[in-house]
Amino acid sequence: MASRTLRLNMPQWQGGDEPAYRFGAELLRWLAPEHDGPEETVFVPEPNGRAPEIDHGIKARTVLLSQARAARAAIERHDPDRIVTLGGDCLVDLAPMAYLNRKYPALGVLWIDAHPDVMSAAEFSHAHAHVLGMLLGRGDEAFTAEVPKKLTVSRVMIAGMSAWTDAEGAILKGLGLRHVPAADLARDSQPILDWIETEGITHLAVHFDLDVLDPAHFSPLLFNRPDVPAGSFDGIVQGTMRLEQVVRLLNDAGAAADMVGLAIAEHLPWDMLRLKQALADLPVMKS
Amino acid sequence: MASRTLRLNMPQWQGGDEPAYRFGAELLRWLAPEHDGPEETVFVPEPNGRAPEIDHGIKARTVLLSQARAARAAIERHDPDRIVTLGGDCLVDLAPMAYLNRKYPALGVLWIDAHPDVMSAAEFSHAHAHVLGMLLGRGDEAFTAEVPKKLTVSRVMIAGMSAWTDAEGAILKGLGLRHVPAADLARDSQPILDWIETEGITHLAVHFDLDVLDPAHFSPLLFNRPDVPAGSFDGIVQGTMRLEQVVRLLNDAGAAADMVGLAIAEHLPWDMLRLKQALADLPVMKS
Repeated sequence: MASRTLRLNMPQWQGGDEPAYRFGAELLRWLAPEHDGPEETVFVPEPNGRAPEIDHGIKARTVLLSQARAARAAIERHDPDRIVTLGGDCLVDLAPMAYLNRKYPALGVLWIDAHPDVMSAAEFSHAHAHVLGMLLGRGDEAFTAEVPKKLTVSRVMIAGMSAWTDAEGAILKGLGLRHVPAADLARDSQPILDWIETEGITHLAVHFDLDVLDPAHFSPLLFNRPDVPAGSFDGIVQGTMRLEQVVRLLNDAGAAADMVGLAIAEHLPWDMLRLKQALADLPVMKS
Repeated sequence: MASRTLRLNMPQWQGGDEPAYRFGAELLRWLAPEHDGPEETVFVPEPNGRAPEIDHGIKARTVLLSQARAARAAIERHDPDRIVTLGGDCLVDLAPMAYLNRKYPALGVLWIDAHPDVMSAAEFSHAHAHVLGMLLGRGDEAFTAEVPKKLTVSRVMIAGMSAWTDAEGAILKGLGLRHVPAADLARDSQPILDWIETEGITHLAVHFDLDVLDPAHFSPLLFNRPDVPAGSFDGIVQGTMRLEQVVRLLNDAGAAADMVGLAIAEHLPWDMLRLKQALADLPVMKS
């Protein structure tokens, strides 16, 4: 019997206003294990070189909304039991999480991220930093309308976030969102296992933003963008986890609850993109 | 008319005794521009976990010889005008260079590398460090027999090599091999253009060992291997060039002579390999 897991490819880049997310998604798909179930790829237009329109304070709002709706339609065509989403920017997880939360009454959401993703247009024009807020009912009305059943805040846990801005701190407090810093997950997964048990979580959806990882130990991250002016990322929190810690955490969590969702986001393999462009520019390659 | 350029994929790893070269070759092929001419992939067995046999002082000599012969047969099946070789370790360039040197009487060879690749079994058991020597007739007799017409030393130039060991220095001197350090190519390509003109080179084959690049600015290199003990690479010369310098050099050289060969070798994208393995280890990926 074919797998009931939907593989959803979503090379969305506009939520972070960074065309390289598109390439990152394509390479992530190439790296992922082969999949024998249904697969959908949301159409995402290539960058056209123009600055994105800003609507309601959100860059590329119209096209992001249309992509979120296309993802929802793609998911509903299959009515899958599980979804593996390969992004793209963090906003790719809007439709998958919204679907899974309707399907599974006691869904838990483990949000592995250096950032809480709870801002809205009032704080930041990049919608990839809004997605967890939207799933909880906070933010742009057209996006929150794509989440018919909002997440239950006690069944959401942010993992790996060790610092946040004042604006984020106020929103986290207002929402009552829980979070576990990276240091508490460095040696074991106990805080997450405790939360799964306490909340009676039977089904789990995971959002894995690669930027939870330490950019000194894992290169394909936003903060390793080459040739940026010094200080470009000042004031932006960077991740501190190691890849093997996240793999262990997900395996521990997957043994404690049925993992029905996994989204991997924010893959920015700069050196691979540079090499691809260099290869295309070499004389004999064109012959 | 279809291209007369052969794309030769050679995921050879045994010449450097490093299984990751295999993955690096596959990813390099994925990154390379699409090609509408003939394509061949030399069969290279996967690592079996056992230590390689050493014969005549060379690790995995038997299988490396058989792969070199398979590459030669694949090339001769097509009698191409040009060859683009995607490695794999540096030894992948034995058969392509040997073929091109028979086809083009005034072939020049531009060897872009942090290392001269002129050692033999007497100095080092890894045959990827022998290949330029073999092409000049130095080293293991079975391999040099695969080079019916040896390269002419005055039409060989090593580019980007800024330091060498005493053993390498003696061999370079004995062969009379010329080389230009990275610093002399940082701003322009003049030393190479002068050599092309002086030697009357009409056709050019390029060997581009990625390790000519500075590992601080380009991550998928041997010297960025994760989790190695401190000091593992002490005494091994590392590259200092930038990717954009090599692209400029190749375009300048390609404008001065007909580029009929290009091999790209030693691609070791560690972070991509780690991510691939991590993805394969995640619970829901298996469902």
